[in-house]
Amino acid sequence: MLSNLSATVEQFEQAKSRLSTLKNDPGNEVKLKIYALFKQATQGPCNTPKPGMLDFVNKVKWDAWKSLGSISQDKARQQYCDLVGSLVAAEGGSSAQVAAQPAGSEATYETLLVTTEDNITTIKLNRPTKKNAITTEMYNDIVAALEQAAKDDSVLTVFTGAGDFYCSGNDLSNFTKIPEGGVELMAKQAGDLLRNYVNAYIDFPKPLVAVVNGPAVGIAVTALGLFDLVYATEKATFHTPFSQLGQSPEACSSYTFPKIMGVAKASEMLLFNKKLTATQACELGLVTEVFPESSFQMEVWSRLKAYAKLPPNSLALSKQLIRSTEKDRLHAVNDAEVERLVERWTSDECFNAIMSFFQAKSKL
Amino acid sequence: MLSNLSATVEQFEQAKSRLSTLKNDPGNEVKLKIYALFKQATQGPCNTPKPGMLDFVNKVKWDAWKSLGSISQDKARQQYCDLVGSLVAAEGGSSAQVAAQPAGSEATYETLLVTTEDNITTIKLNRPTKKNAITTEMYNDIVAALEQAAKDDSVLTVFTGAGDFYCSGNDLSNFTKIPEGGVELMAKQAGDLLRNYVNAYIDFPKPLVAVVNGPAVGIAVTALGLFDLVYATEKATFHTPFSQLGQSPEACSSYTFPKIMGVAKASEMLLFNKKLTATQACELGLVTEVFPESSFQMEVWSRLKAYAKLPPNSLALSKQLIRSTEKDRLHAVNDAEVERLVERWTSDECFNAIMSFFQAKSKL
Amino acid sequence: MLSNLSATVEQFEQAKSRLSTLKNDPGNEVKLKIYALFKQATQGPCNTPKPGMLDFVNKVKWDAWKSLGSISQDKARQQYCDLVGSLVAAEGGSSAQVAAQPAGSEATYETLLVTTEDNITTIKLNRPTKKNAITTEMYNDIVAALEQAAKDDSVLTVFTGAGDFYCSGNDLSNFTKIPEGGVELMAKQAGDLLRNYVNAYIDFPKPLVAVVNGPAVGIAVTALGLFDLVYATEKATFHTPFSQLGQSPEACSSYTFPKIMGVAKASEMLLFNKKLTATQACELGLVTEVFPESSFQMEVWSRLKAYAKLPPNSLALSKQLIRSTEKDRLHAVNDAEVERLVERWTSDECFNAIMSFFQAKSKL
Repeated sequence: MLSNLSATVEQFEQAKSRLSTLKNDPGNEVKLKIYALFKQATQGPCNTPKPGMLDFVNKVKWDAWKSLGSISQDKARQQYCDLVGSLVAAEGGSSAQVAAQPAGSEATYETLLVTTEDNITTIKLNRPTKKNAITTEMYNDIVAALEQAAKDDSVLTVFTGAGDFYCSGNDLSNFTKIPEGGVELMAKQAGDLLRNYVNAYIDFPKPLVAVVNGPAVGIAVTALGLFDLVYATEKATFHTPFSQLGQSPEACSSYTFPKIMGVAKASEMLLFNKKLTATQACELGLVTEVFPESSFQMEVWSRLKAYAKLPPNSLALSKQLIRSTEKDRLHAVNDAEVERLVERWTSDECFNAIMSFFQAKSKL
Repeated sequence: MLSNLSATVEQFEQAKSRLSTLKNDPGNEVKLKIYALFKQATQGPCNTPKPGMLDFVNKVKWDAWKSLGSISQDKARQQYCDLVGSLVAAEGGSSAQVAAQPAGSEATYETLLVTTEDNITTIKLNRPTKKNAITTEMYNDIVAALEQAAKDDSVLTVFTGAGDFYCSGNDLSNFTKIPEGGVELMAKQAGDLLRNYVNAYIDFPKPLVAVVNGPAVGIAVTALGLFDLVYATEKATFHTPFSQLGQSPEACSSYTFPKIMGVAKASEMLLFNKKLTATQACELGLVTEVFPESSFQMEVWSRLKAYAKLPPNSLALSKQLIRSTEKDRLHAVNDAEVERLVERWTSDECFNAIMSFFQAKSKL
Repeated sequence: MLSNLSATVEQFEQAKSRLSTLKNDPGNEVKLKIYALFKQATQGPCNTPKPGMLDFVNKVKWDAWKSLGSISQDKARQQYCDLVGSLVAAEGGSSAQVAAQPAGSEATYETLLVTTEDNITTIKLNRPTKKNAITTEMYNDIVAALEQAAKDDSVLTVFTGAGDFYCSGNDLSNFTKIPEGGVELMAKQAGDLLRNYVNAYIDFPKPLVAVVNGPAVGIAVTALGLFDLVYATEKATFHTPFSQLGQSPEACSSYTFPKIMGVAKASEMLLFNKKLTATQACELGLVTEVFPESSFQMEVWSRLKAYAKLPPNSLALSKQLIRSTEKDRLHAVNDAEVERLVERWTSDECFNAIMSFFQAKSKL
């Protein structure tokens, strides 16, 4: 697939008509973005006078349009197609007919967009209406995508999320499908899945970059300790509410977090559920750099494209050197964490905590 | 013991009369606090007009009273009783007759207050007139208190100090009682004591919290690397003057400090005696968070009480997971540090340095 | 050798005449410094009126003189002699006839000044016209100097650079002298040299201090992870452009940097060539403290002289205790890094990257 990077007018028209087929309301924030991209794509940058203070609705829409600044109509059309495509795909439709695909090769997954372009393979969680919560299927798909990325010709591999969330972590509804073998079997299977998932990060041989485009929760946060670079928008947050749910840390965070920030800071997150801002996470060393939301994607991608031109073997071997001194330890930590979590998942304490979570949620 | 949290009027009256039995002057700072608590307990918050600029004594007393803000008369009465009780106890008297004990169980130690309340076991160093310096007896008592706390029903264990100091570290007069076996025997016994003491922290199975209410020196600082949370008042300081005394680091700080802050920062403290402010210690990751002195106790305890309601097994197992990856190493480091210190304690270099310390002190 | 610290008038006169024998132009920056020191040495602090805005040349010269503040004529004379001496020495002449040597013992090396004074042995890179880039000979000389310092009576060992640079790292012209055995032999020899060099830091038994007087590049940066204290002037920078040159990290930085600052920050430097300011390096824990350029030498040396009066055994044993827990690991990391680099040096990727470097340089 070597299509043009920007969406054709045809694809744009398709996206418009596809929008009306959505079964679920994507929410005000997404709708405003769709509105703004449409205006930018068809009329260019916002030049109309600012609505009056009391004209609330038009003020909000005007703000959304204005916030796109001077991005080109081509780019707005492209982003419009991407956004509509991801919404349709998230409802089980195929995004292929709508989204203008980035150039390069692409594997096909249900709720994952994997593309390779400019020497960069990007794995994008694509379940925005569920805040990119990771289902059992997605765990397996991400492992497959990482294995593929390890073998392809790309220099960097990037992990990010579609929509406003980076990833809300493990989809707790994974725990509601109890198999015939009962809770013990479910816990064992979930443990095997988790061990595999984390091993895929530990063993990944190329530089791995997280582009944290919004809030991150649970395993989406803990796995960051296994990334080589973590770029975050200022509106990203980092939250690991394990003890609230009667659980314990995973993805080697019981080892990587104290190593990165010291136990006194790590315990606040891993034991006592403290939610960090992007700036706090950067000061503690979990995040490499924080960017303003308005220029986040532009700044990060221009930097990554420059990095992807560096000598690839030098990058991969340097990364492996850094990780080699602790690889055995990371595997051992992963095993110990999984073992503990399997116990937790079959405990009354954990069961009651998760039940409370669902009850509180259903009351909202 | 399930008494009421606040002191009864009777206990308050007892405390007042007990105050006059003190043999030693507790110093101006403590006396001002007693004055302020008495005013607050009997008249409520300070509403009298501020004394004139030149009325120094009354200005200082007014400031002390005013600094108590709007704490209730009950609470002031309670704190008054606690403070007088700790002063009397420090002189060898029994505090039991005076202090209004917090609700919950309580073990009895000479210079240690151990209480359990709201799922929190608190171990409070109670030798305020000696800045909570740790005697041989106190080392053993703390080990016993930690062993007890590990087994009781509490969720968190808190370590703190009575009065204005957190802890001034090892009581150097421990070195002045040379046993019949000579310096070698003293050093060996001190080494055994130290090894046991540090092991009690390494092996502690529940979340361990330091509430650093004032300056911390020596082993009171180095042991912080073995705590899970460290909350400090802004007036706390952190000082490890080992080389000045011809000694070397202990409590695993030769391993935990470089891990937390890097060797370039750790050496400044452990080799070159740099004293840190609370803010500096927080930036380096030794301290979790710093609080204003005026709200320190209130903010910290309301937070700890909330933490103590989290699922206890999840907390304990998560803490153990974090420490398990380095427990063997911590024991090995403890052994190596103790071995080195035992050599140090019998060296001329150390002997001369400690002698200089006592001579300088006697000249003050 | 117990000569006076300041240069005699005779030495000053010698230096003046020696200056005219220089074969290479030392560059404008160095020439301005020589001018300023000469003025200060002969006329004292600059009191002449500031030249007009448009009198560019005299303005720059006046600035240089003024920047010396109120340092004494003696001191200026001394610095003048040192600077001229280092320039002459760098051209292969003997500095002995010119520079007023600091008091204390001194070993003799071609492009290294090694002195012992006030219990401090100082190893100063002395190749300012080449930004103190390290040649094959200098690697061996530094190892010899460290072995000597380990055995002498000094308490601290200090590493620093002459002129405006701390050290620009490995002299890439080391790679242009291909021996008869071809590139493989050259790579093997360079690997052996590097392994020895780094081992000398790992095994060094006394506190090791870096006085980073200007920009640091490559191995001069990575080796900082093996120092106990790192003091930097505000104008120092820290740059490790390994992947740009098709290479990989050395001096145990693949282990020490992630330990000090976390992988997310370390990768930015070691993989993606980010250059840090002194303040950034200090925030990440690579640097102990940053000083204003104007008072850098004065503040650092007065502090080091105070440290050098502390009990020497206590300092050395404390340092060894801190490093002992990771010494075996550091040796293993050094071996792994060298092995990887030897492969790199014989790779086409690295060869092409270095060729590009030289081509770009020759065009300037």
